[in-house]
Amino acid sequence: MLRGDITVAIRNAVMNELAEVGYGRLSIEAVARRAGVGKTAIYRRWSNKLEMVMEIVSDIAERKVPLPDTGSFAGDLQLLMFIVSKALQHRIASQIIPDLMAEAARNPQIAETLQGALRTQQQALAEKLVGQAVTRGELPEGTDPKLAVDLMLGPLYWRLAISRDPIGDEYLEQLAAAVTGALKAARP
Amino acid sequence: MLRGDITVAIRNAVMNELAEVGYGRLSIEAVARRAGVGKTAIYRRWSNKLEMVMEIVSDIAERKVPLPDTGSFAGDLQLLMFIVSKALQHRIASQIIPDLMAEAARNPQIAETLQGALRTQQQALAEKLVGQAVTRGELPEGTDPKLAVDLMLGPLYWRLAISRDPIGDEYLEQLAAAVTGALKAARP
Repeated sequence: MLRGDITVAIRNAVMNELAEVGYGRLSIEAVARRAGVGKTAIYRRWSNKLEMVMEIVSDIAERKVPLPDTGSFAGDLQLLMFIVSKALQHRIASQIIPDLMAEAARNPQIAETLQGALRTQQQALAEKLVGQAVTRGELPEGTDPKLAVDLMLGPLYWRLAISRDPIGDEYLEQLAAAVTGALKAARP
Repeated sequence: MLRGDITVAIRNAVMNELAEVGYGRLSIEAVARRAGVGKTAIYRRWSNKLEMVMEIVSDIAERKVPLPDTGSFAGDLQLLMFIVSKALQHRIASQIIPDLMAEAARNPQIAETLQGALRTQQQALAEKLVGQAVTRGELPEGTDPKLAVDLMLGPLYWRLAISRDPIGDEYLEQLAAAVTGALKAARP
């Protein structure tokens, strides 16, 4: 295998092992076996399990979500929520996210790394969407992008992970209208 | 110990063990030791670990939150969010909730039990708050209590568990105003 192929194989093996057995029971041996590489190939790249998992997961969490300007804040929101709800329902993500959150509650280093990766990504997304809406005159100047993140992603996550109710187009439309109303009503 | 005291001791032991070692590593032996009772005292009450943990956790999740009518929807919301954010930040809850969510992602029986317990409680809360607001003329007739739950609890949970930003009075006030705006703007 080429060097880049090995990295991809390891990354896929880590994600699948995380989904199947969770961080606590994940072993470098099992990752190497699954990726079809030797353990040295792993130790050449990362010095331990924590470092390996955190780098791979952060890379994915920080990937840019392509968000074309749909022309309205409600449209932008609906598109973002559609993408996020698909991502959260993905077979691998829906196993890995709760597992890593449980690890984060026990291990401050995991909590800080994940928080850092998610913050960067979410802040950038919210600034883009809110910025566009302010320019269009849809939201008041000074709308808080952090509050926007909580309102855009929190209800979706709650519904998927906690109430476990299905999310359809109608719900996304209703939620997008609600969040637009929320940001108009929030004092900046 | 009296019968009721034994049940309380077991319940406390289960919650503390859950917080410390998580569901996966929790053992009936450790719970008995911690509660100062014999294993038979546990097996007289529950036939296995899953049944024991689910009954105890559901009981707590279903406990009524006392919610006095503050006279306005924004006031009711702020009070609810204050109580929920304190509960989610509680030392034991902040360990147990992510752990059980991770278990729920692996075990459909855990997912269904937790979902059932939370749904009943949240639905009742939302119906009460939304009902009062509709009576006061603050929200339109037909406002969806399920959407209200997602909007009232999702952003708080996201902020506490995922972005891990602090929640102060100012934020709760801002969020309460936003959620009120959201429910006014959502098509019923």
